[in-house]
Amino acid sequence: MRRFLSLMESRGFDGYLVAEMKNMLYFTGFSGGSVLLVSRNAGSTLFVYGVNYEAAKVKTREASVELVKPEEDLIKIIVERLKDLKIRNVGFDSLKASTYLKLKESSNEITFKDAGDIVWTLRKVKDHSEISLIKKAAELTSLGIKKAAEIIDAGLSEREVAAEIEYEMRKAGSDGVAFDTIVSSGLNSAFPHGGCGDRVIEKSDLVVIDVGAKYRDYCSDLTRTFIIGKPSSKQFQIYETVRKAQELAVEKAKAEVKAREVDRVARDYISKAGYGEYFVHSLGHGVGLDIHELPTLSPKSKEILMEGNVVTIEPGIYIPGFGGVRIEDTVLILKDGAEKLTEAPTGMAF
Amino acid sequence: MRRFLSLMESRGFDGYLVAEMKNMLYFTGFSGGSVLLVSRNAGSTLFVYGVNYEAAKVKTREASVELVKPEEDLIKIIVERLKDLKIRNVGFDSLKASTYLKLKESSNEITFKDAGDIVWTLRKVKDHSEISLIKKAAELTSLGIKKAAEIIDAGLSEREVAAEIEYEMRKAGSDGVAFDTIVSSGLNSAFPHGGCGDRVIEKSDLVVIDVGAKYRDYCSDLTRTFIIGKPSSKQFQIYETVRKAQELAVEKAKAEVKAREVDRVARDYISKAGYGEYFVHSLGHGVGLDIHELPTLSPKSKEILMEGNVVTIEPGIYIPGFGGVRIEDTVLILKDGAEKLTEAPTGMAF
Repeated sequence: MRRFLSLMESRGFDGYLVAEMKNMLYFTGFSGGSVLLVSRNAGSTLFVYGVNYEAAKVKTREASVELVKPEEDLIKIIVERLKDLKIRNVGFDSLKASTYLKLKESSNEITFKDAGDIVWTLRKVKDHSEISLIKKAAELTSLGIKKAAEIIDAGLSEREVAAEIEYEMRKAGSDGVAFDTIVSSGLNSAFPHGGCGDRVIEKSDLVVIDVGAKYRDYCSDLTRTFIIGKPSSKQFQIYETVRKAQELAVEKAKAEVKAREVDRVARDYISKAGYGEYFVHSLGHGVGLDIHELPTLSPKSKEILMEGNVVTIEPGIYIPGFGGVRIEDTVLILKDGAEKLTEAPTGMAF
Repeated sequence: MRRFLSLMESRGFDGYLVAEMKNMLYFTGFSGGSVLLVSRNAGSTLFVYGVNYEAAKVKTREASVELVKPEEDLIKIIVERLKDLKIRNVGFDSLKASTYLKLKESSNEITFKDAGDIVWTLRKVKDHSEISLIKKAAELTSLGIKKAAEIIDAGLSEREVAAEIEYEMRKAGSDGVAFDTIVSSGLNSAFPHGGCGDRVIEKSDLVVIDVGAKYRDYCSDLTRTFIIGKPSSKQFQIYETVRKAQELAVEKAKAEVKAREVDRVARDYISKAGYGEYFVHSLGHGVGLDIHELPTLSPKSKEILMEGNVVTIEPGIYIPGFGGVRIEDTVLILKDGAEKLTEAPTGMAF
C-alpha cells in the first residue's frame, strides 16, 4: 500500500477506486468488498454490504471497513466521500462503462481515469509470502498430475481422470481449482482449450491434461500430454518438438530478458520443425491471484522479465483432425534463470 | 436470437455488442469468443482469436466465426464493420469503461448504449432444454449434500468434507463446481460466505454446507446446515426458524407474485422470531449460466416472478460469535407454485 500510494502520487492521483475483486484482495486480504477507496492523504476505506460485513471486520487489513446498507446508493456514497476529502483526480483499475458514466455525471470537479496498470506494476512482481503460496499451489498441482500419470488409460472418461486429479489435490490441501481442469483426448486435444467431457480415452490417443490447484487464493498452472500406448512417429515428432521448445524457453527466461524473446526462442524452434502455424497461442502468462495476469510472454509483449515474476511457459502444437501436444510449467523468474515451481517428468510417458 | 432481434428493434438498436462471456455462450453455444456483433439486418459475427478459432468453427451456432489475428486491433475491426453495415445505434451488454471510451472516440456517427437488460429479459426465463440441464446439475448437487450428510462428523476438516462432496459430484457427471464450495463450521458459520478451510469440525458445531454442481455450463445451488451432536436449545430454535421461513417462502413463490413479497414472507417470519437483524442478505437469486443472476429476491427487487424463472430460496440467521444457519434450495417457478430442483431433507440432522 505504501508503494501504491507513491505510484498514485507519481501519476497525479489523490484518490483511487479499486473495483476489481482480486485487486481488493491484494491490498486488503479480503475479497468480499464492493469497492476500495484509497485516499493518498486519508487512508483507505473498504465499502462492504451486510452479507460480508462481519467477515470484513475480522479479515480486512490496511483499510477501514464501512457498511453499505441495502437502501443506500454506493456510487452516491463514493462521490460524497471524494468531495468531503477534497479529492480531485481519481484513478481506477477497471470500471464498467455504466458505473464510469454515473461517476462522471455526478461531479464536474472530479476526474476519473483508467489506471489499472499501476496496480499491475505491483502485482506482477511477487514478494516472498506470495511466492511461498504459489509454490505450495504448484506442489499440489504436481501431485495432481502425478496421480493422472498413474491412472490414465484407455477406457477411462476424460471426466473420470479430472475427478481423480482434483480429489488428489483437494485431499492434499488445495482450496479448489484455479481454472476448469482440461482433460482433452484424441481429436479434442487439437483444441488448446479442449475442455473435459464424456469422451472415453482410447488407445493411441494424445491426452492433454492442464490443471491448477489454488492455495490461499494463489493459482498455479501445469500441463502434460500423455500418449496411450506407443506413439506414432508423427506423435513422437510433435511431442519432442514441443518438449525441446519448452526446454529452450525455460533456459532463456531470466530477469532483464524481453518476454517476447522467450516466446521467440520456442516459436522459432517449432517453426523450424515445420509446425509454426499450429502454435496458435502465446508462450505464457503471469500467474498469481489470477490465473491469467501480467506479464504476458507473446510476440507482441513489451514486458521485460523481472525477478519475482511468476509465469507459465507453455508451447503447444495443435493439428486439427490429428491431435495436440502442450507442455507447461509455472516458473519463478530469478536473476540468473527460471525456477520451475511445478514438477513432473517431461519425457513422453506411454 | 430471433426474440433478441425483436427486442433490439423495440429499443431502436440496429446493432448490438455482446461482450459478456456467458451471454456469448447463451447465444452461440461457445464461450471462447472475444465479442459477438449482432446486426439486426446482417446476422451475427463472433470474433475469435487463434487459440480458440478451430473450436469456434466446430461449436458456434447462430453466428459466423471470424478470426482475429494477433497483430489486429479488435476495436478497430468492430468499428469498421459497424460502418460497413451502416449501423448507427449500438447497444451493449457490459463493456469496460476503457473499451467504451475507445469505441466512442472512434466514430461520431455511431452511438453506444448500455442495454444489458434486454439480454436478461431472455436469460431469466429458462426454456425446456435449459431447465433440463439445471435439473441435472441440481440432481448432482443433491448427491453431493447426501454424501456430506453421510460422512460429516467431528474430527474431519472443512476441506476434507468439501473434497468428498466435490469428488462425489464429479464422479456422477458434474463438470465442476458452480462456485467455491462452502463448508463453514463453528463460529465460521456465522459468516454467510464463510469459506472452507483447515478448521477441524468439533462436537456441537453448526456446519453450513453450500454447494453447487455445474452441468453443461448450467449451475445449481443448495445449502444445508448440520449440527454435530445434539443441538442446544438456541441452535434448535434458530434452525427451526430458518427452516420454517424457507418453507413459507417456497410456498409463496409462483408466477405473477412479486419477488419482494417472497422475500418478505421469510423476512417477516424471522423478524417475528426475534432474529431479523441477523438475516443479512437477500432471500435468493436467479440461477442459470451464472450462479448469481436475475431475478433477485430481495426487499428492493422490482421483479415479478415468471414461469421459467429458476431461483434460490435461502434464508439464513447469522449470529456473530455464536454461529449461523442457512437452508437453500434451487426452485423452478411454475404457474401454480415452485418446484424444488435440489433435494435433501430439511429436518435437522444430528
